[in-house]
Amino acid sequence: MLRFGATDDSVIARLRWLATEAGPLLGAALRASGGIDLRAHMAQALRMGDEMHQRNVAASALLVRALMPHVARVGGRHGAVARLAEFVAGNDQFFLNVAMAAGKALAAPAGGVAHSTLVTAMARNGTDFGIRVSALGDRWFTAPVETPVGLYFPGFGPDDANPDLGDSAIVETIGLGGGAMAASPAVARFVGAGGVAEALAVTAEIREICHGEHPYFLIPALDERGAPAGIDVRRVVETGIAPLINTGIAGKKAGTGQVGAGVVRAPLACFEQALEALLP
Amino acid sequence: MLRFGATDDSVIARLRWLATEAGPLLGAALRASGGIDLRAHMAQALRMGDEMHQRNVAASALLVRALMPHVARVGGRHGAVARLAEFVAGNDQFFLNVAMAAGKALAAPAGGVAHSTLVTAMARNGTDFGIRVSALGDRWFTAPVETPVGLYFPGFGPDDANPDLGDSAIVETIGLGGGAMAASPAVARFVGAGGVAEALAVTAEIREICHGEHPYFLIPALDERGAPAGIDVRRVVETGIAPLINTGIAGKKAGTGQVGAGVVRAPLACFEQALEALLP
Repeated sequence: MLRFGATDDSVIARLRWLATEAGPLLGAALRASGGIDLRAHMAQALRMGDEMHQRNVAASALLVRALMPHVARVGGRHGAVARLAEFVAGNDQFFLNVAMAAGKALAAPAGGVAHSTLVTAMARNGTDFGIRVSALGDRWFTAPVETPVGLYFPGFGPDDANPDLGDSAIVETIGLGGGAMAASPAVARFVGAGGVAEALAVTAEIREICHGEHPYFLIPALDERGAPAGIDVRRVVETGIAPLINTGIAGKKAGTGQVGAGVVRAPLACFEQALEALLP
Repeated sequence: MLRFGATDDSVIARLRWLATEAGPLLGAALRASGGIDLRAHMAQALRMGDEMHQRNVAASALLVRALMPHVARVGGRHGAVARLAEFVAGNDQFFLNVAMAAGKALAAPAGGVAHSTLVTAMARNGTDFGIRVSALGDRWFTAPVETPVGLYFPGFGPDDANPDLGDSAIVETIGLGGGAMAASPAVARFVGAGGVAEALAVTAEIREICHGEHPYFLIPALDERGAPAGIDVRRVVETGIAPLINTGIAGKKAGTGQVGAGVVRAPLACFEQALEALLP
């Protein structure tokens, strides 16, 4: 989750409810459904203005719509169905959790390919930013992480921001998030990255460091061109263009929670080290 | 409804179910919810690629998400909740019915304003196209309706098409549908109207016959400009640009149902007659 909440009683109660009621009910509904084709689902949401990192309203609503018949069927009479429906109705970022898992599932099989210079993971922990590269297996290449630039929730500002953190950059690893900004001019405004022209420019820039275009994640605003996919460490080092992450900004004081949303660049040093390691 | 089904037993059974179970359950949920702000809801869907005539997937999914907590709460234990959830999950055009009612509710108060030359209703019945104009009250100005041009479902072609019909052009009357094509490049392809450039051109053209820009229906792809709204009969006659309707194509043989989707122009003669009637 990218929502960092204070660890007060309401947070603990919600985590308990997720573990004991919502999670099992969602799991039972998912099994009853026979599974959701997440790649098709995400392709549809991308056509609806989600880049699936800082905007997930379409993917979340579509997932709710697909799962509710099964939730209602397996949920029986008790109020659990209504409580779950209420929780998901109130959380536009609900799908981000699913997108991260899908991202990992989509990226992991690309690991361990001999001579492949494609990035298979990006993550950050508030101190360092790390990447993995296909031919280099499970090894992490790390460098100090930057602090996002963006817009702040009322009452917060840049002084409250922690350097970037979280596992969610796996979304950018598979061609969504920052690189898919052209599909989501609304998110460009939300993260303070400008308007339509700036959103198109970001996607065009990220295209320069990618191996190709995603065959399923198509962008209607680009007349159905695929989102740039397959970040290549050679191209990153050659162009000096670092991947762009659409990110939530966490408060640096423990318990503050999320204080804004913005963009952050991956540090070039990770890619330079990886390229060095790829040399024979 | 724009889905014209054969009047076989399954259609009758579905209508019975809608009347006796789904309708009352939706009604109870809606009352329990305290009401849905449809203008805000439609503004959100427009930001997600719906023009709300031939594309309603976002509006439908968002409505399901908003109503399901209340459906589950008032629906109790029986299978009605699951049946309703299944029905709405399988119908991307579910919201069109709501959009038409909202369109009527939004347009009607603009009627009966002295000297106002704005169009307050557009409708067609398979034979004629009719418009109402604010200053002219409830009077209809009609002319023979055209046949849509578009794409056909497998097994059908232009020879199977009926001239345009239905109440749904009320969606275009309030600034959505054809005139909002720029918000919905995906629908432009669906109705065979081209790609992004053509979608932008349609909205730019319809802007020429409109009084202004909608203050709530904003289009992210146009850097938050409002959809063209308030069709003015004077501008239609002056420019010769007729409103464009994104429409379902009905089969001309009774019982065939919908055979495709396309675009159709309102006949200029309606507007010429209305302008004539407006002259002192």
